[in-house]
Amino acid sequence: MSDAIADAVRRGELRSVARLITRIEAGDPTIAATLRDLHAAAGNTPIIGITGPPGAGKSTLVDQMLARYRANGERVAVLAVDPSSPFSGGAILGDRVRMNRHNTDRGVFIRSMAARGRLGGLAQAAADALVVLDAMGWDRILVETVGVGQNEIDVLRHADTVLIVQTPAGGDTVQAVKAGILEVGDLFVVNKADTGSADRTVSALREAIEFRTHALGADAWHPPVPKTAATDNQGIAELLTAIDAHRRHLQDHPEQLALRRRAQARARVTEHLAEILRSRYLQPTNRSERFEAIIDEVVARRCDPSSAAARLLHD
Amino acid sequence: MSDAIADAVRRGELRSVARLITRIEAGDPTIAATLRDLHAAAGNTPIIGITGPPGAGKSTLVDQMLARYRANGERVAVLAVDPSSPFSGGAILGDRVRMNRHNTDRGVFIRSMAARGRLGGLAQAAADALVVLDAMGWDRILVETVGVGQNEIDVLRHADTVLIVQTPAGGDTVQAVKAGILEVGDLFVVNKADTGSADRTVSALREAIEFRTHALGADAWHPPVPKTAATDNQGIAELLTAIDAHRRHLQDHPEQLALRRRAQARARVTEHLAEILRSRYLQPTNRSERFEAIIDEVVARRCDPSSAAARLLHD
Repeated sequence: MSDAIADAVRRGELRSVARLITRIEAGDPTIAATLRDLHAAAGNTPIIGITGPPGAGKSTLVDQMLARYRANGERVAVLAVDPSSPFSGGAILGDRVRMNRHNTDRGVFIRSMAARGRLGGLAQAAADALVVLDAMGWDRILVETVGVGQNEIDVLRHADTVLIVQTPAGGDTVQAVKAGILEVGDLFVVNKADTGSADRTVSALREAIEFRTHALGADAWHPPVPKTAATDNQGIAELLTAIDAHRRHLQDHPEQLALRRRAQARARVTEHLAEILRSRYLQPTNRSERFEAIIDEVVARRCDPSSAAARLLHD
Repeated sequence: MSDAIADAVRRGELRSVARLITRIEAGDPTIAATLRDLHAAAGNTPIIGITGPPGAGKSTLVDQMLARYRANGERVAVLAVDPSSPFSGGAILGDRVRMNRHNTDRGVFIRSMAARGRLGGLAQAAADALVVLDAMGWDRILVETVGVGQNEIDVLRHADTVLIVQTPAGGDTVQAVKAGILEVGDLFVVNKADTGSADRTVSALREAIEFRTHALGADAWHPPVPKTAATDNQGIAELLTAIDAHRRHLQDHPEQLALRRRAQARARVTEHLAEILRSRYLQPTNRSERFEAIIDEVVARRCDPSSAAARLLHD
């Protein structure tokens, strides 16, 4: 039996989609069947993840990418994931500005999201929202996030192609990139290339990338480092070509795409495991006597939290 | 048998402390016994959490609080938790500026931290670092974080008194605060009170707070809304008085303190459960055939991640 909301989503009813994503944000457990149906229908839309530090010009870049995809006749969904919410209210991502520009275009869907009270956190909510959009059959999905902390890296894990947006910022850039970001990037975009020492940034990034890529073997993807100046609409076509090249690389190396998909699935299942545990133990109605007895010991400092968790799993 | 590193920490050897926190950041599993020892010794230091949006002046405020506590002869540790790392490298929190000012003062310890590759995320690492500082016997611990997203709320959970720093920003402030922040704040500080319409912000906050507090019963703490101008060192004494009043309130209502401590313990144990699961399933060496068989089904879209997790737990 098919789920009514899932059917409406697959028919492209945007109001149903918007409502469903709101319920995902809120952590509504009654949509599990809907998500199950949509998961079965998803998996065919290229998902492009975009991240970078605040001020790197991600919003403008996404906007220009969107305009160019639209000019090519593609239907595109944008998910803007804001980990700094609830304080910022999404303003960081420039959502409202873009909404205005593409307001009347039925070939564009733009949605920002924040994790309001969801136990599993924003990455899980974003992953569910991506499944919803994926099942709708857009030609592309762009998922944009600010960061990058672990939460953001978790969001990017669900993209097939990950763009790390940098700016020409002197020697710091490369050092910052070293710390956990190199591993997740498929393209390193040097935006605002008309300012500062863009070429130095590009070559420093290339060096760091090649160092990583050589460790990965002959068939590894070599992340390109395109330069853009999004505010002047410069370099966007070349960027889209590089994105398509990455997609073709994955198609030509199905074993690499399969590894990525398995990693995505592992992360999602493991996070769901954690979410089930959280709701099992953190909801007052779900607490067991045994759990509470162990909490007593932690509060009394007779047992530390790590040992308590191990005892709960092994008893 | 006592742990040598734990002993060094308890003796106040700052080099051991710094090294231990670095290992916590990295998620080094070999420090479990040390943390166990320190957990048993902790629980007696007042922990004050400070958060608010970027630009609210948190760093300056913390710096002024620190100076005043020092003038009163108190020994104070500051933990600056930066969820936006690795990109920012801690600069947002103004750590280096403060380091310089208090550099030669043995009564001050300042440390910033970021979660580099730790599976359980920054909140867990921060909680462990707070246990370390707590066990050292400082007179106060200040923990500062940017945000507030879920990660930051998780960090604040480990403070006894939580300050939400706001600025006079017109009507937006109150709306932003409504979304999940009111519940975690014990004091709402309107900083930069010499700019903009501070009084309007104060009364809007008061209104929202009273609405919440009335639902909590007669013994509930009524969060004050002190005004400060940290750059001019205005209002700091009043702020510290309000913080002390909150501490006395908790001492006078031990059932409220107990509830808070139980909530802290539940959150920590549950996160450790999640962390154990993550390492069990996400590390290649730990994967079971059964887990991999279910991942096959998720990748093939015959099973969705949520159902897969439920099956793993219930089979």
